Formats: sequence, C-alpha cells, structure tokens
Amino acid sequence: MYERYWQQAGDKTSLLISGWHSMSYFSDIKNLCWFLEPQFAKEVIRLHDIVGNAVTKDRHIVVGTGSTQLFQAALYALSSPGGTKPISVVSSTPYYSFYRQVVEYLKSGLYTWAGDAAIFDKDEPYIELITSPNNPDGFMRQPIVNRSGGMLIHDFAYYWPQYTPITSPADHEIMLFTVSKTTGHAGMRIGWAIVKDKEVAKRMTKFIELNSIGVSKDSQLRAAKILQAVSDSCEPAGDSRNFFETSYHHVAHRWQQLRKAVEESRLFSTPEFPAAFCNYTGRLFSTQPAFAWLKCKDEIENCEDFLRSHKILTRSGKHFGMSLKFVRISMLDRDSNFDLFIK
Amino acid sequence: MYERYWQQAGDKTSLLISGWHSMSYFSDIKNLCWFLEPQFAKEVIRLHDIVGNAVTKDRHIVVGTGSTQLFQAALYALSSPGGTKPISVVSSTPYYSFYRQVVEYLKSGLYTWAGDAAIFDKDEPYIELITSPNNPDGFMRQPIVNRSGGMLIHDFAYYWPQYTPITSPADHEIMLFTVSKTTGHAGMRIGWAIVKDKEVAKRMTKFIELNSIGVSKDSQLRAAKILQAVSDSCEPAGDSRNFFETSYHHVAHRWQQLRKAVEESRLFSTPEFPAAFCNYTGRLFSTQPAFAWLKCKDEIENCEDFLRSHKILTRSGKHFGMSLKFVRISMLDRDSNFDLFIK
Repeated sequence: MYERYWQQAGDKTSLLISGWHSMSYFSDIKNLCWFLEPQFAKEVIRLHDIVGNAVTKDRHIVVGTGSTQLFQAALYALSSPGGTKPISVVSSTPYYSFYRQVVEYLKSGLYTWAGDAAIFDKDEPYIELITSPNNPDGFMRQPIVNRSGGMLIHDFAYYWPQYTPITSPADHEIMLFTVSKTTGHAGMRIGWAIVKDKEVAKRMTKFIELNSIGVSKDSQLRAAKILQAVSDSCEPAGDSRNFFETSYHHVAHRWQQLRKAVEESRLFSTPEFPAAFCNYTGRLFSTQPAFAWLKCKDEIENCEDFLRSHKILTRSGKHFGMSLKFVRISMLDRDSNFDLFIK
Repeated sequence: MYERYWQQAGDKTSLLISGWHSMSYFSDIKNLCWFLEPQFAKEVIRLHDIVGNAVTKDRHIVVGTGSTQLFQAALYALSSPGGTKPISVVSSTPYYSFYRQVVEYLKSGLYTWAGDAAIFDKDEPYIELITSPNNPDGFMRQPIVNRSGGMLIHDFAYYWPQYTPITSPADHEIMLFTVSKTTGHAGMRIGWAIVKDKEVAKRMTKFIELNSIGVSKDSQLRAAKILQAVSDSCEPAGDSRNFFETSYHHVAHRWQQLRKAVEESRLFSTPEFPAAFCNYTGRLFSTQPAFAWLKCKDEIENCEDFLRSHKILTRSGKHFGMSLKFVRISMLDRDSNFDLFIK
C-alpha cells in the first residue's frame, strides 16, 4: 500500500552506499547497543517527538532485525537464566499468532507459552504481551493480569496516526516498533525497542549479539533515510505530502470500501471502534487497523475455507486463539489486489 | 583489512537503492527460501564456481543474518521437535567460543552443548560442528566422532584462497559461509548455507522465518554487488586487481610480520601449518588463518592478562575449551592497528 507514496517521493529517499562503508561489526562502541547506527537512532527519536506516540527522553534504543527479533530479545531479557522453571508468557485472545510460535519453537527453558492472559491464574512471575492497537482485531489494549511479579512487553507496531488516534505518548518499560508497519518497508527487517531500564536494554543487546551479532548496517542506514523523509514530510514547510495524512486517507478509503462490501454481503461482520481525538492530526476518528478481523455469520462455520474457495487467502482465527468463524485479512496489500478482494 | 581494497575498487561497488524498492517481506515466492534475493543467490553460485571451494549443483541456498543465524537454523533443522531429550552438540577443542554460548543461551529443549567431540562417548544421535580451517587455531578439520546417528554442520567461513589452499570443492550436508570473512563486510550480517537435503533446507528457512521473518533485502542486494565485484576481479580480462590474490598477499605479509615478531620475542609460539597445493591460485602454500592462535611459553600463565597489560586485547583460550596459556588474536584489523600490535 505504501509503495506508491515512496515512488512519488522520488530520489530523495534513495540510499547510496559505497563498497567500503559500514564494513565493521560495530556502529558505536560507546553506546550500550554497540551495533546501533547513530543516524538511525537520531531519526527514531525525531519521529517519535514529532508524532508524540512514545516517550524517548532518558530511554535506551535497541535496534533489531524486525520487531520479531526484539520480541525474543525482550523475553530473554526479562526471564531469569538461573530460574528453576520457565516463566509464563501470556497474551489476551485474540493474540498475534506469531507470538505463540516464537515463544514455543525452541522449547526454551527460559520462558513458556501460557496462553490467554484473561484466564491466567498462577501465583508466580509472568510476562504479558500487549499489542495496542491489537493484531489481529485492532482494539486498543491495556494489561489485564495486573498481578505482582508481572512484566510487560508493549508491541506498538500499529500505534501510528494512519491507523489509530495518538492520544498520548506511550510510556512503558519495553515498547516495540517496526519500520514495516510504520512506513511499509518490511523487507528491511528493521525494528526498534524503547527501553526504560538499562540492565534490560543490556540483556536485549546481548540477545541480539548471540542471535545474529548485531543488525544489518545497510538497512539501518536506509531506515534512517526513510524515517527522515517521513519526519521532513511532517514539517509545515516541507515540499512533500505529509506521510501520515496521505496514508491515513489511503487506509480510511479502504475501510470505507470494506465496510460497504461487508454490509452488502450480509455474510460477515467487522469490529466497530470508538472514536478518539488524535493529538497529532487534530482529528477525531476511530481506529482503522492494518488488518480486518472478519467474522462469518451463522451459516458459515469455517471462514478461512469459505474465503479460500473464492480465492481469497486469509489467516484463520484458530491461529489467534479464537474460533474458525474468524479470519484476519491484510488491509495493506497493493491497490490492485485490494480492489480485487473488495470486488 | 579489506577496507582498502574496497576503497580502491571505487564506485562500481556502490549500491543505489530507491525508497520504493524491495519493500515486501518476500523475494521469490517460488523458491523454498522465499526471502532469498535471486541476484544474491546467483552471485553466490557464480563465486563458488570460480573459486572451486564448494559444490553448488542441485543444492539449496538459504540466506541468513550472518552465519550465526544459519548455525542456529541448522541446529533447529537437525534436532527433533518431538524428541524426549535434547540432542548433543559437540565440537573438538579448541572450538569457536561463540558456538557454546549460542547453543546454551536459550536453554533449548531441542539441543544441548556436550563439549569436546574428542571425548564424546554417548551412544545416541549427535550434531558435530566442524570449522575448517578452524577458528581459533587455523587447522583443517574432519569430523572425529564418526558414529551412527551423527549429523554434521560444516562451517566454511574461512575456506577461501586468501586464508588456505583450496584443495577440492567441499561437498557436505550443510555448509555455512559468511560475507564477513569472504570480503570483510561484517556489518552487512549476511551469510549463506549450501544444503543438500530439501527438508533440512525447509526447516532452516522456517527457523529464519520464526527468528526474524527473513533477512534484510538491502544487505542481500549489497552483498550481491560485492560478490559480483569479487567474481569480476577474478576474470582474466577484468580491470580490477584479483580480490583473492590481493588479499592473499596482504594476509601473507601479516603472517610474516607476526612470525618474525613471535620469534624475536621468545615468549610465544604459533602453529605451523602443512603446505598444500591450491587449485584456485595454482600456488603451493600453508594456511595463513584469519586469527593467530598464540601460546605463551613457560613463564607466562595467563596470556590474555599478560597481553592486556601491554594494551593488547585478545580472547583467552579458556573460551575455546583450552588453557589460559592460549589466546586468539584477529589478523584482520586495519593496517595501523595491526602494525601497532606487531610493534
């Protein structure tokens, strides 16, 4: 969906990198996160300050190979290597399907998947994952276990003004962001964490050292260039169209198309979101998520199968801890694919 | 060490990447490794065919965020998710210090560190890691356990003609390579695996999907450009200095300097390597490793401490499963640092 914006933005977002540049493992040996490119960190902070979606003052930035790697770094940082048993990891249903797979695939002795946060009742330390707006259903979320010994990881991949009203700067222990959902550059594999506690940031950095000895310099430099273009487009005197405004209208139009199609079909329903005032855009609007969380009405039992029979590929609700009546559908495909889907 | 070559190579190794390029998670959905850039794969195969250091015909290429990620992907692919206990991972001492840390850090239930391959005597499946030439000591290696149920991971990071004679194309189940040791571009975080078995390649790909949802497109494209320049420099009609010849002479000169300094000091010893005929260069020579494996003579007990007191930072033999009398020293630093070290 974002490809068109970047095509129109033209050459000022191109990166030229010489054969002898950025050859070292190291980016900044004085930084706790020694593989973090200073230019990337600078643009991350600048963008958060412009949008007002996260507190960055006196925080540590840790860069990752996408927020997927950072999520695992956070699990590593919050779990106890000397513990007698793995710490429970929970998230309210419907939860991001990947979380469960990522927690489970290495059968780690540090952490274990404990399922739906709403029914977690063990009297022991735990890690709760809060995705807000939530993937897959788009609702804003708060932690729900709220017991002592709880540690929180906030996934703010979608807390940007093209998707949801920015109501206040988020301020939590570990906050994850990703270029892929901010600007559409999924292929860069660049995410970042904003971390309050120095020791946690150090352990996250250690994880990324052990997991991949740092993060691509080339993609960090390219991400810096792209984030810079986004911030520049937000300046009143800028000569580019405001990235978030342009993207907001793009997503809004898609949701109008989808809601109309859903209504006419009489086969499905989609969530309704409350309106809120966005401090960044100065606009009152309702969340318009990057995914549609579609529920089939009575007659259809397996929504994924039903849609597949119409050549529409979706992800079944079962992967998100919900029933087969639900599916998740990307709202961020290219225009031609999206229009075909609506049709 | 390689920086100078790339500076002199000039603009033909520069990468220009536009803001709208390579935005997707996907590179080639028809490929088993769906995040592998076709251009990168093509240049990997071309380079191996020129150098003759690995068989690529009818093999699968899996790209990784450095060979560190691929090593973990291989462990995941070779271990059994339904197994009742973790599979033993062994390597002969001295082994690459990072291996042990990477096997252990997540306390995986899939695999467990079982130490020195030379004394492994369990009658059960195992994974043996073979680094050849070996990190840290530079010797060529073969598997040594040789028992049924054994699975092998060959790390060929240093099997390139600037370091060691290329005696035949390597042909094993899983062979790991990395741009960092081939061309010096550590900051790219790009490695590749050449894999015989399709199911193993699939599981390695799955690991990388779960670990980081693929590998930076930007770095793959840049690596393709760099490998292309290396291959071009190897063509008889090329207008660049042959990369491997230039690098061979650079490393050879450093080893001469080091051996002279070691001899004059009377405090240390370094390994001696047998000569072999290199099919690529047509030259008879001895391995000249990327690391020096230095042993202190009688009076010095802790070689790392001794050298640190002279402001030389090394890695103690203890990390490689050996005594404090050994240290590993990088031979690939910039000229100015290397000259200071020799002095």
